Amino acid sequence: MAEKKLVEEITSMEEDFAKWYTDIVKKAELIEYTSIKGCMVIRPYGYAIWENIQHILDGMFKDTGHENVCMPMFIPEGLLQKEKDHVDGFAPEVAWVTHGGSEALEERLCIRPTSETLFCEHYANIVHSYRDLPKLYNQWVSVVRWEKTTRPFLRSREFLWQEGHTIHATAQEAIEETRKMLDVYAEFCEESLAIPVLKGQKTESDKFAGAVATYAIEALMHDGKALQAGTSHYFGDGFAKAFDIMYTDRENKKVYPFQSSWGVSTRIIGAIIMTHGDDNGLVLPPAVAPIQAVIIPVAQHKAGVLEKCAELKALLEKEFRVKTDESENSAGWKFAEYEMKGVPLRIEVGPRDIEAEQCVMVTRHNRKKEVVPLSDIVETVHRKLDEVKNGLFEKALKNRENHSYACGTVDEINNALDDKGDGFVKAMWCGNPACEDGVKEKTGVGSRCILTDEPPVGEKCVYCGKPADKLVVWAKAY
Amino acid sequence: MAEKKLVEEITSMEEDFAKWYTDIVKKAELIEYTSIKGCMVIRPYGYAIWENIQHILDGMFKDTGHENVCMPMFIPEGLLQKEKDHVDGFAPEVAWVTHGGSEALEERLCIRPTSETLFCEHYANIVHSYRDLPKLYNQWVSVVRWEKTTRPFLRSREFLWQEGHTIHATAQEAIEETRKMLDVYAEFCEESLAIPVLKGQKTESDKFAGAVATYAIEALMHDGKALQAGTSHYFGDGFAKAFDIMYTDRENKKVYPFQSSWGVSTRIIGAIIMTHGDDNGLVLPPAVAPIQAVIIPVAQHKAGVLEKCAELKALLEKEFRVKTDESENSAGWKFAEYEMKGVPLRIEVGPRDIEAEQCVMVTRHNRKKEVVPLSDIVETVHRKLDEVKNGLFEKALKNRENHSYACGTVDEINNALDDKGDGFVKAMWCGNPACEDGVKEKTGVGSRCILTDEPPVGEKCVYCGKPADKLVVWAKAY
Repeated sequence: MAEKKLVEEITSMEEDFAKWYTDIVKKAELIEYTSIKGCMVIRPYGYAIWENIQHILDGMFKDTGHENVCMPMFIPEGLLQKEKDHVDGFAPEVAWVTHGGSEALEERLCIRPTSETLFCEHYANIVHSYRDLPKLYNQWVSVVRWEKTTRPFLRSREFLWQEGHTIHATAQEAIEETRKMLDVYAEFCEESLAIPVLKGQKTESDKFAGAVATYAIEALMHDGKALQAGTSHYFGDGFAKAFDIMYTDRENKKVYPFQSSWGVSTRIIGAIIMTHGDDNGLVLPPAVAPIQAVIIPVAQHKAGVLEKCAELKALLEKEFRVKTDESENSAGWKFAEYEMKGVPLRIEVGPRDIEAEQCVMVTRHNRKKEVVPLSDIVETVHRKLDEVKNGLFEKALKNRENHSYACGTVDEINNALDDKGDGFVKAMWCGNPACEDGVKEKTGVGSRCILTDEPPVGEKCVYCGKPADKLVVWAKAY
Repeated sequence: MAEKKLVEEITSMEEDFAKWYTDIVKKAELIEYTSIKGCMVIRPYGYAIWENIQHILDGMFKDTGHENVCMPMFIPEGLLQKEKDHVDGFAPEVAWVTHGGSEALEERLCIRPTSETLFCEHYANIVHSYRDLPKLYNQWVSVVRWEKTTRPFLRSREFLWQEGHTIHATAQEAIEETRKMLDVYAEFCEESLAIPVLKGQKTESDKFAGAVATYAIEALMHDGKALQAGTSHYFGDGFAKAFDIMYTDRENKKVYPFQSSWGVSTRIIGAIIMTHGDDNGLVLPPAVAPIQAVIIPVAQHKAGVLEKCAELKALLEKEFRVKTDESENSAGWKFAEYEMKGVPLRIEVGPRDIEAEQCVMVTRHNRKKEVVPLSDIVETVHRKLDEVKNGLFEKALKNRENHSYACGTVDEINNALDDKGDGFVKAMWCGNPACEDGVKEKTGVGSRCILTDEPPVGEKCVYCGKPADKLVVWAKAY
């Protein structure tokens, strides 16, 4: 009975996708709400996913020459205002500190919504010569944006992220950095999270406040909406000019350096949930799963069962994150619980298995059972986790393919979306913002990014019919 | 000339200890100042020390059954006010957020100075039964306290720390947790940082706001002042009562649980600097040094030198954090630079060394040179780093012994301090707060903690002469 109840508590995706999502974040114990509107507690199971994400990404950043630093969380109002586009973009949604203890501050401070201005102030202090360049910095912190409507992981007033901020001697180097980090993000999403992504450049209307160019990776969620999973910005020398950062080059001339920034946030946990999850709960990719394999003793009161489980755990935990559940709950209840929690692999061990020197393995994403010998279990777990990763990626890719539509006209977009629900629309665009707005207005889908790695799907703008060379992916988005 | 200049820029400890300290944090590139008063940038070299500290401590926390979570940074004013002593202690020094975007908030929010209230709100939501206990949580975040005077690492308005918050079914368990974490901190300081510490209990006047009992580890700095390197608090059921946290026990009765909290902050980097540093700069204990060994090519333009350095680096970096400095600076300049940066071990490799299949090793803390064969260099580096760790600890312990004075009267305290500068005074105390205040007033040293692991140094209160059974260590403190 218990296992039945546990599962019944999740709303099905078909019935109400938004409710399914919030059921999962609560019931898999990823988060808990607080009395502070738009802020959440990230619980141990949710935070462990973030720690695994941090560990992998941080390694990729360090392998590409980046160093971690830590800036203050406060930005004085005057500092935020130095770059005009930037302040216009962020000032409306920042939290303001006006008092320290009982005293009013002379100048109010905002809590960083992003830290370009702080990094610029710092670079102005430490960059003087071409020998000081590049600086390839990153920080892992939380930022605050005073959003009106919030949802766990997807949009909260405070969220965790990393923000890379780099400064270079030449535009070319900064542009290369911007693209390189987008590639790092794409590789991370596809290899570690098993989430296929499209890489592209944002249109003018969707650029980061203060950027020359913004790039993004976009993933398709189960409900057919797009989610921006990471962004990377090229700033040219605009911030350097606004913040008076100059260096002496090899010819002994004072010149402006060039900058980039890039970020991934806890939002990506939302992407994991909505890409891989199902009506039984969370489904986690092995690379970031807090528990990669759970050992469930069957008939655990029988002689030798718990001992064999302990033996297996000792063997497996040298290479994997493993847990044995020895609690008094029934095996069936445990099956449902770890399905809900998205543990990639379940290993069942009962008296008959022990006698036959085998165990039962069940992969979470497809519930496939296999009886395997205990003799080479370490290799088998490696193989199974690889199967899970590849299976998740294939499934997500197939879902994206099934919900991607090449369209030549606005009518074709509306027909495609009517028939098959939301998804990725690929259509040509002439570059005119009015056409971009027109598509949004007439179809409900907005431009996500301009794809550069894919062949065009036509030669004419989907809106005005004039010649067009930009392949744009359009979608509703989180 | 260059190496000379680099060293000359540090003020000597004798001349001006405070200036020596700030010279080091700036010139070893640990921090940079910002335009936000009392807030600093932690630069890559400083942050890498903190990452190593985090890595070791986090492992110790997880080995003792703790899990990481993440609470919001905001505390609504009403929530902060729920526990009377706590709000009295912290409200005067918090930063207040009053506006989100352009709108005034209905209730102002403070930025966490510490997170007991947030954890309590969460525990009230998730703790219902004895089965839910204990919860052994920790978080790595920054906190804000609006201090008047600030110094890098030692006292800043925003600082990084970890805060453990645990909740237990019984008082006994919570007390054990409080003591266990103090032991974890002491072990970390002595084993990883080579800083000897005294463990003890704070007097009533020095307790954490809201605690039943506060414990601390105290270390002696080079200038004879004490620095509290970690604290651990037992709360009884006071917070549970204030926040209405109750659980159903095994007898089906609703009862209050018991809590603890404990923390170590970036302040501990200040302790490392002031315990081990010298007039040539920083001296880092190997366990947290961002670079454990630096390879310096001598006559690097000669054939084979850089190749041999690269070969050595490839060999050593499997087990150590190693860097080779191939820059165009002179070997002498490099020696001074890595001494300034406190790198524990320098490995010099020149043409004659290569011919003789040897290298020169110099340990930073005592500048001892040894010519060693290249054949078993990995073992030699292990041995050398152990020597450094033990050498640092012995030196610090000796310094503490040389500046510890057992005193029976106020006059003896004044004589001891007059003769030998500041230090640790050990003296008996009757427990009367008036005597504690009296000692402070007449001698300048305050009670640091009541030592429980050491034999008494007398039977009478150092101030009033009445029978006394508390051995207290007194000192001036950071």
